[in-house]
Amino acid sequence: MDFKEELIKKSTLINEEIKKYLKREDCPERVLNEAMEYSLMAGGKRIRPVLIMAAYELFKDDVQEVFPFAVAMEMVHTFSLIHDDLPGIDNDDYRRGKLTNHKKFNEATAILAGDSLLNYAYNILIKNIINSNSNSERKMEALKELSNGIDRMIAGEYIDTEYEGKEISSQYLEYMHENKTGALITASVRIGALLAGASLEDLNKLTIYSERIGLAFQIRDDILSEIGDSKILGKPVGNDKERGKCTYTTKYGLETAQKMLNEITNEAVNIMDSYEKGAFLKELALYIANRNK
Amino acid sequence: MDFKEELIKKSTLINEEIKKYLKREDCPERVLNEAMEYSLMAGGKRIRPVLIMAAYELFKDDVQEVFPFAVAMEMVHTFSLIHDDLPGIDNDDYRRGKLTNHKKFNEATAILAGDSLLNYAYNILIKNIINSNSNSERKMEALKELSNGIDRMIAGEYIDTEYEGKEISSQYLEYMHENKTGALITASVRIGALLAGASLEDLNKLTIYSERIGLAFQIRDDILSEIGDSKILGKPVGNDKERGKCTYTTKYGLETAQKMLNEITNEAVNIMDSYEKGAFLKELALYIANRNK
Repeated sequence: MDFKEELIKKSTLINEEIKKYLKREDCPERVLNEAMEYSLMAGGKRIRPVLIMAAYELFKDDVQEVFPFAVAMEMVHTFSLIHDDLPGIDNDDYRRGKLTNHKKFNEATAILAGDSLLNYAYNILIKNIINSNSNSERKMEALKELSNGIDRMIAGEYIDTEYEGKEISSQYLEYMHENKTGALITASVRIGALLAGASLEDLNKLTIYSERIGLAFQIRDDILSEIGDSKILGKPVGNDKERGKCTYTTKYGLETAQKMLNEITNEAVNIMDSYEKGAFLKELALYIANRNK
Repeated sequence: MDFKEELIKKSTLINEEIKKYLKREDCPERVLNEAMEYSLMAGGKRIRPVLIMAAYELFKDDVQEVFPFAVAMEMVHTFSLIHDDLPGIDNDDYRRGKLTNHKKFNEATAILAGDSLLNYAYNILIKNIINSNSNSERKMEALKELSNGIDRMIAGEYIDTEYEGKEISSQYLEYMHENKTGALITASVRIGALLAGASLEDLNKLTIYSERIGLAFQIRDDILSEIGDSKILGKPVGNDKERGKCTYTTKYGLETAQKMLNEITNEAVNIMDSYEKGAFLKELALYIANRNK
């Protein structure tokens, strides 16, 4: 398996699926739908949907079963980005090298586009469950997993805004990240496994895997915010300290943060070594730890 | 039946139910939960949950069956109010005589409290459906009805912001209100009827009833915005014209708006006259048309 090739294959599949759900009718709220599409198609890495697919494929082959969940997850992630970027929260003008939603459209549109994406995610899944003839119990469990994940993500985001510019304990910093970034990553892995009917033992192992890569994702993000290439990242670099943001690098220093990143990535890799079809998720853990954007 | 007594009885029941879902643990996101509670308990009239209960009671007696949907509906309504009031949308400082969420807390908290209430509504219902042993098909249909209603409500809100200060056609004005206010009112009535297993014929009749009272609700709102008592309303009065807001009164004038209100209220009353247990919903239509706040 060539990891990069497989990653592109998966994210291409997801992009094709997302396109099926774009609303393009000529209606009075047309621009709202354009705003949703703008951020949804702004070049995200599709990590969360890829995780759903890959976790499912540890156990089963018919991956199209998870597509509605993969699409919904990306909508939820996009909703969270649009709202995070708002003037009332992070006040960011650019994301992935493009204007943020409220800069491209306006603030009211961005608030409502975020709201609508969150709702649309649920809407897709509810209809999928009603219309499907099989596995509706598994699907409801997966839907609950998503919903709980969103609840935790919003709590994490709240803590992030609450403590901007303030001293934060290691305990709170960890709690914040476990929720803000970790919750949806864990939900993604668990949703894939739940939909495949994985055993409780597998679910528990995969939960640990997901928690390790979730934390790794955040630490790598913090490191890139400090020493990344702003051209590659598509956003300014090195201003977390100025803004009083509490991150793994501002709190522990670059060297310790890197050491933590290596350790937890190893733990994730070891878990995947125990799965016959674990190669992709093993490589994904390494990719997360080493990515440049 | 004494209508006012019955209305108070129903809204008291709903308030008791809502309280069971308030999050009061001491956790890092405690203030976010307080912000959610602040707006949820800010003295709303609980019209939508009351509609769910009353529509159910046209057909069945065990009204506690609808409580999770009633609570979720009020959470959705509260989410929409918090986001509408934001500086980026209506920029209102007061609602129901109390500071709006972003004024009482701050903008970031208000955005996230709204997000979290929307998500919590789904969370409650998903868990309710998973844990219930009966009628899960009906409940999924009711959940879809809610989700579609939210989608329409957000679209309506978008059109409202988009056309503020601009000329709007009668057709668009109607479409905006059908969605912004009407969608959740219709969803409430239909959810009550769906949960009770109403026939398609009854659902269709109730849909028309709900559309009439939804429109009546909006027209009465517009009239009160123009000539209501700001002390009773808890918000300033008579500034829709100044703000270039398109409402039924700024568009058609007070007299014509009142005439429209009377006509559609009569239609709603006539529908309820055909139901043995229709007295409460008949009185509710009259109450909506004549309320002072």
